[in-house]
Amino acid sequence: MTINIYLAGPEVFLPNATEVANQKKALCRLYGFEGLFPLDNELDLTNLSPQQSGLLIASSNEAMIARADAIIANMTPFRGTSCDVGTAYEMGLARGMGKPVFAYSNDERLFLARNLAELPATRRLEEGHAVDADGMQLEDFGLIDNLMLDGAVSAPIVTQAPILPDQRFSELLGFERCLQQARAFFAR
Amino acid sequence: MTINIYLAGPEVFLPNATEVANQKKALCRLYGFEGLFPLDNELDLTNLSPQQSGLLIASSNEAMIARADAIIANMTPFRGTSCDVGTAYEMGLARGMGKPVFAYSNDERLFLARNLAELPATRRLEEGHAVDADGMQLEDFGLIDNLMLDGAVSAPIVTQAPILPDQRFSELLGFERCLQQARAFFAR
Repeated sequence: MTINIYLAGPEVFLPNATEVANQKKALCRLYGFEGLFPLDNELDLTNLSPQQSGLLIASSNEAMIARADAIIANMTPFRGTSCDVGTAYEMGLARGMGKPVFAYSNDERLFLARNLAELPATRRLEEGHAVDADGMQLEDFGLIDNLMLDGAVSAPIVTQAPILPDQRFSELLGFERCLQQARAFFAR
Repeated sequence: MTINIYLAGPEVFLPNATEVANQKKALCRLYGFEGLFPLDNELDLTNLSPQQSGLLIASSNEAMIARADAIIANMTPFRGTSCDVGTAYEMGLARGMGKPVFAYSNDERLFLARNLAELPATRRLEEGHAVDADGMQLEDFGLIDNLMLDGAVSAPIVTQAPILPDQRFSELLGFERCLQQARAFFAR
């Protein structure tokens, strides 16, 4: 019986998204899985408005996650200090459907350290906790990202700095470790 | 029978989070709902490590969403051009559990316009679409945020610029419109 794994992550926005998807799917097959990538959906968008197109892509991705047995999410910080929001949403969706979630990030810093390093005008208050420029608290739980994301996974989030900086979103060593986690999960 | 609504949003990080929570819960009662706010969970975190504390908060929030009949999410862009990732995750979780999702944003710009205005070094390619500094595509579907979030809602996302800029995360006019959407939804 085929075990399908939905491949969530911001690499859909890369110029070579299909190439990265094919690499991920080849790795899935090495581990005995079938990888489902968002761009696999062949949708006919002719005669649709931009909004209708976007919403059709969304519902097709949701249907793909419903068909999957698990999800592996690329949580590498995207356009800021947290994971891509589409990826975060899909982690939640899979979890709400009772499917195991595995995740990796090509950034090995903890969330607080990353926020302190990258957000403008952060500061520590006298009480000890740190806040951003708007005075909004920075999470300090020794976790990888927002606590809801750390709480979602069925095995520890794999973190590893990319070997080449320009492969921040396409480096797949962490992804392969997630495949190993998934193999152990489904062997139980 | 009480209808419970989970109140998701980055206002948990505000210095006056409890005050905003109380305002939201009072508005919920005006519309006949009971509001569930993440900080309502009274958790005993003594003797727990930071990581254990964070994960206990996460699982308590998940249990609260499981108990809720719907979710209203504050999608106001947070530390970047998208919604808070914890909020995005919770929208997905609720949706995966089959619960209706309502959402508002105190930013009335569309996603592409916001990305072009706020991300560094964006540019348009000859083919027409726009990319960020890493050459990664900017979504151009005339939607409010990442298409998965726009696809999640049971009624149109309410968008409205805040009346006072310093109330970007605490202004509740959009929230009240979501309560009206929820009332119409549950009246059906």
